[in-house]
Amino acid sequence: MKKIKICAVVASRANYARIKYVLLALKENPDVELQLIVGASTLLYRFGKAIDVIVKDGFNPLRKLYYVIEGETLTTQAKSTGLGIIELSSAFEELQPDAVITVADRFETMATAIAATYQNIPLIHLQGGEVSGNIDDRVRHAITKLADYHFVATEESKKRVIHMGTDPAKVFNFGCPSIDVLTHIDLKIDNQIMKNYGGTGKIDWGKPYVLMMQHPVTTTYGSGYFEVTETLSALKDFTQYQKVVLWPNIDAGTDDISKAIRVFREKNKEDNFSFFRNFSPEDYARILNNCTCAIGNSSSFIREGSFLGTPVVMVGGRQENREHGKNITSCDYQKETMILKIKQQIKHGKYQSETLFGDGNAGKQISKKISVLFIT
Amino acid sequence: MKKIKICAVVASRANYARIKYVLLALKENPDVELQLIVGASTLLYRFGKAIDVIVKDGFNPLRKLYYVIEGETLTTQAKSTGLGIIELSSAFEELQPDAVITVADRFETMATAIAATYQNIPLIHLQGGEVSGNIDDRVRHAITKLADYHFVATEESKKRVIHMGTDPAKVFNFGCPSIDVLTHIDLKIDNQIMKNYGGTGKIDWGKPYVLMMQHPVTTTYGSGYFEVTETLSALKDFTQYQKVVLWPNIDAGTDDISKAIRVFREKNKEDNFSFFRNFSPEDYARILNNCTCAIGNSSSFIREGSFLGTPVVMVGGRQENREHGKNITSCDYQKETMILKIKQQIKHGKYQSETLFGDGNAGKQISKKISVLFIT
Amino acid sequence: MKKIKICAVVASRANYARIKYVLLALKENPDVELQLIVGASTLLYRFGKAIDVIVKDGFNPLRKLYYVIEGETLTTQAKSTGLGIIELSSAFEELQPDAVITVADRFETMATAIAATYQNIPLIHLQGGEVSGNIDDRVRHAITKLADYHFVATEESKKRVIHMGTDPAKVFNFGCPSIDVLTHIDLKIDNQIMKNYGGTGKIDWGKPYVLMMQHPVTTTYGSGYFEVTETLSALKDFTQYQKVVLWPNIDAGTDDISKAIRVFREKNKEDNFSFFRNFSPEDYARILNNCTCAIGNSSSFIREGSFLGTPVVMVGGRQENREHGKNITSCDYQKETMILKIKQQIKHGKYQSETLFGDGNAGKQISKKISVLFIT
Amino acid sequence: MKKIKICAVVASRANYARIKYVLLALKENPDVELQLIVGASTLLYRFGKAIDVIVKDGFNPLRKLYYVIEGETLTTQAKSTGLGIIELSSAFEELQPDAVITVADRFETMATAIAATYQNIPLIHLQGGEVSGNIDDRVRHAITKLADYHFVATEESKKRVIHMGTDPAKVFNFGCPSIDVLTHIDLKIDNQIMKNYGGTGKIDWGKPYVLMMQHPVTTTYGSGYFEVTETLSALKDFTQYQKVVLWPNIDAGTDDISKAIRVFREKNKEDNFSFFRNFSPEDYARILNNCTCAIGNSSSFIREGSFLGTPVVMVGGRQENREHGKNITSCDYQKETMILKIKQQIKHGKYQSETLFGDGNAGKQISKKISVLFIT
Repeated sequence: MKKIKICAVVASRANYARIKYVLLALKENPDVELQLIVGASTLLYRFGKAIDVIVKDGFNPLRKLYYVIEGETLTTQAKSTGLGIIELSSAFEELQPDAVITVADRFETMATAIAATYQNIPLIHLQGGEVSGNIDDRVRHAITKLADYHFVATEESKKRVIHMGTDPAKVFNFGCPSIDVLTHIDLKIDNQIMKNYGGTGKIDWGKPYVLMMQHPVTTTYGSGYFEVTETLSALKDFTQYQKVVLWPNIDAGTDDISKAIRVFREKNKEDNFSFFRNFSPEDYARILNNCTCAIGNSSSFIREGSFLGTPVVMVGGRQENREHGKNITSCDYQKETMILKIKQQIKHGKYQSETLFGDGNAGKQISKKISVLFIT
Repeated sequence: MKKIKICAVVASRANYARIKYVLLALKENPDVELQLIVGASTLLYRFGKAIDVIVKDGFNPLRKLYYVIEGETLTTQAKSTGLGIIELSSAFEELQPDAVITVADRFETMATAIAATYQNIPLIHLQGGEVSGNIDDRVRHAITKLADYHFVATEESKKRVIHMGTDPAKVFNFGCPSIDVLTHIDLKIDNQIMKNYGGTGKIDWGKPYVLMMQHPVTTTYGSGYFEVTETLSALKDFTQYQKVVLWPNIDAGTDDISKAIRVFREKNKEDNFSFFRNFSPEDYARILNNCTCAIGNSSSFIREGSFLGTPVVMVGGRQENREHGKNITSCDYQKETMILKIKQQIKHGKYQSETLFGDGNAGKQISKKISVLFIT
Repeated sequence: MKKIKICAVVASRANYARIKYVLLALKENPDVELQLIVGASTLLYRFGKAIDVIVKDGFNPLRKLYYVIEGETLTTQAKSTGLGIIELSSAFEELQPDAVITVADRFETMATAIAATYQNIPLIHLQGGEVSGNIDDRVRHAITKLADYHFVATEESKKRVIHMGTDPAKVFNFGCPSIDVLTHIDLKIDNQIMKNYGGTGKIDWGKPYVLMMQHPVTTTYGSGYFEVTETLSALKDFTQYQKVVLWPNIDAGTDDISKAIRVFREKNKEDNFSFFRNFSPEDYARILNNCTCAIGNSSSFIREGSFLGTPVVMVGGRQENREHGKNITSCDYQKETMILKIKQQIKHGKYQSETLFGDGNAGKQISKKISVLFIT
Repeated sequence: MKKIKICAVVASRANYARIKYVLLALKENPDVELQLIVGASTLLYRFGKAIDVIVKDGFNPLRKLYYVIEGETLTTQAKSTGLGIIELSSAFEELQPDAVITVADRFETMATAIAATYQNIPLIHLQGGEVSGNIDDRVRHAITKLADYHFVATEESKKRVIHMGTDPAKVFNFGCPSIDVLTHIDLKIDNQIMKNYGGTGKIDWGKPYVLMMQHPVTTTYGSGYFEVTETLSALKDFTQYQKVVLWPNIDAGTDDISKAIRVFREKNKEDNFSFFRNFSPEDYARILNNCTCAIGNSSSFIREGSFLGTPVVMVGGRQENREHGKNITSCDYQKETMILKIKQQIKHGKYQSETLFGDGNAGKQISKKISVLFIT
């Protein structure tokens, strides 16, 4: 019997954490030939070169496609999407997949969706139907309208996708594959292993730390410098804790945020901050699990955070409409409020685990369903 | 008071007919500075150089953007969209419009939608919420999810756009501006004026003729040659009528259709066929109004056709789910059935006018509403 | 022993005629794995789809790359070159050739040269060192400076390439492979076979005809309509001859020339003109050999023409500085002069064969030398 | 009288230093309207955002064009050139300059040359005719073949450009405008002003320091990590000197070099190294003038260095064939040899000033000559 060719496109470090367990399951699925394309910021040092982790995990990308036009303005973000369509169209034409699988809502994801659907290749979309608070929402829903099959992560998302006019027979909720990462590993953190990540600053992972990850908000492009400086200043107050900061993702405005971090770092060298570019999905899960509190606007705080029960202070509007668990408290870009909220969350400590985004068995179920859908 | 800058992108001859009366109204709206961009097939000889008609109509395009990658395969169609994003992003960045206005559902339209929304420029979309029977549906609905304001053409479309999760306060139905063309002119056809269009073959517009316009169907890419040959062969049977054929649009597969037409033409030189590349919206309206019967798969047969009462034989699945009036009868790609259906429609003659797609006052109402939305 | 991978890029119908016998020899060279890329206008109906002839000749292109941005203005010509670099870079990266081979001087050729040399892939250039009378000269010499090995077509060209600072040990003159086409076939023309080319108009190849091929001149962009109308009008005078016209190549300005041809054709239907888009290199050779006189500005009139002794009237400045044989007489864009010159050439009849551009054994010698250069 | 529109494209920090005094002179030339385009790495934080210096110097760029495809591989370098052609073609089409002026030999410069010449815009090239030791040579000479007017920097370069077949009447030697920078300022360095550049590490510019700037060598792509580590290790030996390191330029392979610098820096925090991304041309001149010795492969060591008499150790083959003064000594990528050569140069101290690359009056003379050439 001929194998079905499923082409997966991973275009950012966040993408990978969310799709890894689907890729693992597809790789072991005897019905499937997995064609992996790694592209965009996944290949770039500035954004943590997730490609290295992917290869270390045993995957063999058939294409490495560079389509980030450097600059991280709104215009280059749009143009990178255009270039992505050009590059991905060639790859799909040569690889002739039976279906393309893509994840989430980032601006580059649109390139995958257009290149596939315009070439009449069925599109499988993970994590449709969610809402957050920025341009990603539009992109995510637009991709839903382009896609053929939908593996959503929550019941509410399922309803939303169907309500948008999608055939219910093509919408499946097996939970989010990013939760799979959490249930397949020992969540203990290991100082020795963590050394491999380099990073700047000193950190003892066995001692308490606060985690910060704050991405640009494309709809308020231009105010990132201020936004992130407030958070860093708030964290400075917590002298008794180590502070772990992840560099932002590639969205328009990342330059401002990076600059704010660099300026802050230069002025506050003695303040117990460490800075990192990327972790494997597993090590990131451990870091999130073991932190005293997390602050910023990463959707992982909501997704993996709700399962792990991590106390989170969610900053600004980037995730404001997203379905979330009890571990989340929100606040504005205001240092004083942030300090207050962080204190509350530290005092509260770990929350009970919630399975809002699944119970950690999504990958295999999605892989099985793909067999059923495409084996004829 | 500062004028609001509204940037309209016209990217195909069909686009223009549908947006012309909005452009005219915006041009005369004292609140508005109209920025016109003309791009893609609108600039190309093979597709009728609609730019010439646009300039003749008194418009002054600020940019002429070439972004059609020749080949008309599914892959070049995707890549042209990518290149379109790159080109339009530059234009929007330089022109700094307060809003971008785009129309319908063609593949290039997506380029406009992404370039605008990714740069945080509000997007106004005309003719959302409709359904037809091909890839255009996905594109149209995806654009609806990206857009900020929606000027739909029918009540059913309005419901559909709202049902997809759109804020009802941002959805307006003033009918379709393509109907405006029909109500502002004398519909009598003039042999003398028509001579300017050149075309090959002899035609006396005062005598009976059947009109044919059949575009590629991207979802059945590869079968266009057969599809169009059936229709031409059916028409050949109607020896007592003149036959007027329009060359197809630029969708993937257009090459096959053009080839079928050329081969047919070479073999049937004596058979009273004429071939044309483009007409002004007004002259096209006259042709559609005066034809004995129209056959093919153009949406204009449904849209303008329902208002004009033109008897239409709709071929294949390209428009199969589209809301339509009584003037439409459908049939498969089968010569014999086509002949039968054409005979029935000829026998029936003109239908009563229906206002399903509006009453011909859309342009001014849309222009007024844009003032209200953007004047602050 | 590992074969050397030689990647050839054919990007226009003219390219193919000039490189075919090198490709044939490389294909049969046991040291070589030929990787053929076919791109740009070679794939397009409007320019004769030379790809069909290439496949019929037994070649199997590994990539078909579309990178013509339609419009044929000076700007789209530049942009097509840019897109060509993007597409060819991907192909070279995937195919990993030991060397890239390219031919001549057309604008798209620059894309091949940059994509190869910027990726540190040795570049073999055919037909460097020639001079003509337009932008091609600059492009040709610029490519010479980028290339590693040079297979020139004449002694004068060899001197010129060396004089430009090239290492003489890397410059070889085995003549032009386009002459090989002439020495390997029966040059008799066959009405029956010629029917397969379609074309419009009636032609009996057994009876006398004048051949016309006139391309745009990019340095006088904008005056093509006038230029070609003069030639067509001159030809009209020769009522006793059939006239065979080839559509122009894709250079900027081709639209004007095509328009002039179409307008002329529409007005002069009774005048014994036939129009064709493409011939195989062999059939083109036969046509050139059997014509009473050739007029226009094609370099084939000089190259193959000198070997065949075809009487030629060379129009305008496009080839003005090119080394040529006795068969060439030149004239301005002036109908009356053209008529005079054509009459002179018809009166003169065939010229003696000259071997200025080689004796017809270039392909094999080039292939052998490539073995020597790259086998280590 | 109508001004002549001269469009200058600055596409890297090195470009700017070399063309600044021409820009200043053109800006004050009453015959000229200067159109400045700033593009590529000039806009990027990673490469020092030279745009900030340009704006501070009083220039007003009409276009900021992003066309760096991030990745810095040989393939992205080629593709960035392709994208550059697309972007620059649009800009030239809109700005309609009477001539385009470009400088030197970098890969992006080719994009400017093609976009201009393919659109029939005369191209003025600065610094043609030089030789160095890498791909830049080919690019430089290819640009010479494309260009219309040549402002070279040395007599030897002039001979070379003419020898390549250029009309001597279009080749002018007024010296290199980068020398103009040196003769128009006080070369004393000021600790206070230098603080504005940030940088990491501590430096007292009043005390002795060794300067290092080592760029990737595209023809030995892949070995940059090793190459630069040798130099850094050699410098470590000079404990009594401060070490000032500039981050490399954007050529393919820059990622390896940056990585080597980061790894070295992390391991040798106590070793008196400082790291910078960009300086204004003037401050860079001061740094080069005041350093005890310079090591690396920057052409500024040869160009400005010969005028300033800076003792230089030139590493590897990147500049191996370049005409240079007595201040240069060369060596391989070998730590021990480097240490030896640096010691020799320190011992020798400053060299006598040489005017090989001009006497510092190039900008005004070039500007005057441009008036003469284009005023008609």
